[in-house]
Amino acid sequence: MDFLIIGGDAAGMSAASRAKRNQPDLNVTVLEETMDVSYSACGMPYNIKDPKRDIEDLVVRRAEVFREKQGINLITGCRAETIDPEKQVVKAVDHKGGEQVFPYDRLLIATGASPVMPEVEGIETEGVMPLKRLADGRRIKDFLAVNSVRSIVIVGMGYIGLEMSEALRSRDLAVTGLSRGFMTGYDPQIADVVRQTLIDHGVILQENHVLEKIEKKGRKLAVTCSGATCEADMILVGVGVRPNSGIAASAGIALGPKNAISVDRRLETSVPGIFSAGDCADAYHVVTGEKVWIPLALLANRAGWAVADNVTGGDVHLPGIAGSAVFKVFELEVARTGLSASEAAAAGFKPESITIKAPSRAHAHPGATPIHVHMVGDRKSGRLLGVQMVGREGVAQRIKAPAVALHAAMTVADFSQTDLPYAPPFSPVWDPMLTAANQLLKKI
Amino acid sequence: MDFLIIGGDAAGMSAASRAKRNQPDLNVTVLEETMDVSYSACGMPYNIKDPKRDIEDLVVRRAEVFREKQGINLITGCRAETIDPEKQVVKAVDHKGGEQVFPYDRLLIATGASPVMPEVEGIETEGVMPLKRLADGRRIKDFLAVNSVRSIVIVGMGYIGLEMSEALRSRDLAVTGLSRGFMTGYDPQIADVVRQTLIDHGVILQENHVLEKIEKKGRKLAVTCSGATCEADMILVGVGVRPNSGIAASAGIALGPKNAISVDRRLETSVPGIFSAGDCADAYHVVTGEKVWIPLALLANRAGWAVADNVTGGDVHLPGIAGSAVFKVFELEVARTGLSASEAAAAGFKPESITIKAPSRAHAHPGATPIHVHMVGDRKSGRLLGVQMVGREGVAQRIKAPAVALHAAMTVADFSQTDLPYAPPFSPVWDPMLTAANQLLKKI
Repeated sequence: MDFLIIGGDAAGMSAASRAKRNQPDLNVTVLEETMDVSYSACGMPYNIKDPKRDIEDLVVRRAEVFREKQGINLITGCRAETIDPEKQVVKAVDHKGGEQVFPYDRLLIATGASPVMPEVEGIETEGVMPLKRLADGRRIKDFLAVNSVRSIVIVGMGYIGLEMSEALRSRDLAVTGLSRGFMTGYDPQIADVVRQTLIDHGVILQENHVLEKIEKKGRKLAVTCSGATCEADMILVGVGVRPNSGIAASAGIALGPKNAISVDRRLETSVPGIFSAGDCADAYHVVTGEKVWIPLALLANRAGWAVADNVTGGDVHLPGIAGSAVFKVFELEVARTGLSASEAAAAGFKPESITIKAPSRAHAHPGATPIHVHMVGDRKSGRLLGVQMVGREGVAQRIKAPAVALHAAMTVADFSQTDLPYAPPFSPVWDPMLTAANQLLKKI
Repeated sequence: MDFLIIGGDAAGMSAASRAKRNQPDLNVTVLEETMDVSYSACGMPYNIKDPKRDIEDLVVRRAEVFREKQGINLITGCRAETIDPEKQVVKAVDHKGGEQVFPYDRLLIATGASPVMPEVEGIETEGVMPLKRLADGRRIKDFLAVNSVRSIVIVGMGYIGLEMSEALRSRDLAVTGLSRGFMTGYDPQIADVVRQTLIDHGVILQENHVLEKIEKKGRKLAVTCSGATCEADMILVGVGVRPNSGIAASAGIALGPKNAISVDRRLETSVPGIFSAGDCADAYHVVTGEKVWIPLALLANRAGWAVADNVTGGDVHLPGIAGSAVFKVFELEVARTGLSASEAAAAGFKPESITIKAPSRAHAHPGATPIHVHMVGDRKSGRLLGVQMVGREGVAQRIKAPAVALHAAMTVADFSQTDLPYAPPFSPVWDPMLTAANQLLKKI
């Protein structure tokens, strides 16, 4: 049986490896457009932060290993062009420009996502770069090494923009962050803590600004936004990503939210035998039960495995995602799981929310810093709907508790009674999340 | 209505404060044997660690505040002697030795627990001290300040012994830890990591040793255990605690496991109108549904609140505890929730367990250290039964996720599908707990 995979990143290579492990006689072929497979994309800002680190450190497993040790027919530099679901073939163009045809019994579309590049004048200018693939990371790192870059404008302050702010400031570069909104999916009090930290670290924030054009001015790039102009040596574009679903749509495969490829809980698309996983595919949200598109690394890996299992005789159904995310920016840990109050209202809940501030350590324990906890619950059902947090310690791991609670559809009252262990260096007796739950219970 | 409380520590003062807040016209009287109320007992090792810190820093709220601002009739230096459930009175002895009688409509027994002092020759010698109450902490800190203490034997390496090892080593004192077993409730691989860290920090461990006698030898104390003798300037006794349930038993109130006062989910004892909370009372275990006695601070506070609510017209039922605990020892965070494999077998489950080692940070992210995760599941039901962890970072908060899962009676399979967010500084893509769950699933 031929298992063909389009895309050799997290979802594709997870599926390939696991399918081959599950069923060693399976023919597994992977078509990867670039030359890079299996690398830590999320690690790029941290690698770029340190000029001494080789960007190739991020490669987890080299193509040869997949080919030679795992027996996967991994073809790099090969771009899939069309899928013919009737004939069960994929047409692709190899790195020499030659057309090739790959038959399949089962197909996985793991084409990932691409950075959105605003359609403004000058967006193609040299020195204007996104950060999504390893090639982008290489390009940025090389650009910083070769050019005497002193100043950078980051267009878009999403996770990449925030993480790169830290990376670039720690290389002592002047950073201006240009964005339409600022952490719009977060509670304003949580966002305020992040904003203040960026400012404290010398990041110049220009909010409510929309990019209008980019021009080359001598050795500088001039960025015009909402009428004002600023100059920089480099421009990082991080306004978001979009799913690479064109090849699926052209083959008649149904798309879901944000034009991501629509998949069922088994990761199968609207066309039987064709699966999709990773940043190109949608998922069920465990709180709403509705489809969403929130492309993150864990889901890509998990969905890749599930596809492999389902292609090799299994019947794995993924419950879905809880909308969990975490990032570090300077000394802050910022995390969320579930719905924000506005997302909850949009999904038909009657949300109540609260934001509390509590110390990270016990009474009189040295070194405590504040943690802000924002919690959203449903007035109708009492359900816990979401939690957001920010603080200097204990946030990134702590968020995993309410993430589990969301999977279990716990009420705020249930969550408030959980036995979260305590020791003075790690928490007050009442964990800040329990304090938030106790406060929220008074409102719902 | 008279609400009388025996014991002015965590459970007693939580109940008193909340009852008065719930119903300001309630007569709330608290009888506290010592002069100390409302202090962070768990903070004592960390306070003792630093000679410059005043032990009184640990007082959270002073007696006057309870009396003057909150209107609680708090009587310190008053020891309750007997309860007469027929006449609804408590007889007590005040600090002058005078007998007093306190009537009640509702009674809370919050007498806490006392350190077990092994019944060996010399246990009363000066310089042999437990650490449970604030007075103990004061005594130890004064003893260290006044005497030229260079060496200490700790009898019993439970949480107090482990935390005090760190505190005393950081004061550059020679520490010998003497114990029958070592972290017997933990997986041997988890215990090994802790043991090695103690050794690396110069703690001399003498395991499988039973204290036989203590003698004064000049200015030293000679400790004899299993025939061998060692000398020290001070002896800390931390072999465990027992519930102060004598007053309850004498009044005909039923006792539960380990002679703790037996309470229902409303914290009421076998005698209607008499409640118990805190270290003297038992609790339901959410995994087994059976009664257990695991005296810890969060439960004391939570149960105190629940009693207050139930005494003032509420009907609060506590689901119980998950057996969650966390402590720090030197650079390690150690945590557990739920059942160990042997506890699970004793409770009638068919446990399977696994211990995995994973890095604390993502591939190629600098500064990663190992995390060991031990996970126990039930072969019959697939349920998650318990998790234990040790590592230098990310353990104390991480354990809260499986604690929540235990409250929700999740299966290992359910837990393995939870959306635990990832960023390179905080975790591999697959959280070590998810890796453990994935591995354990192969066995159950």
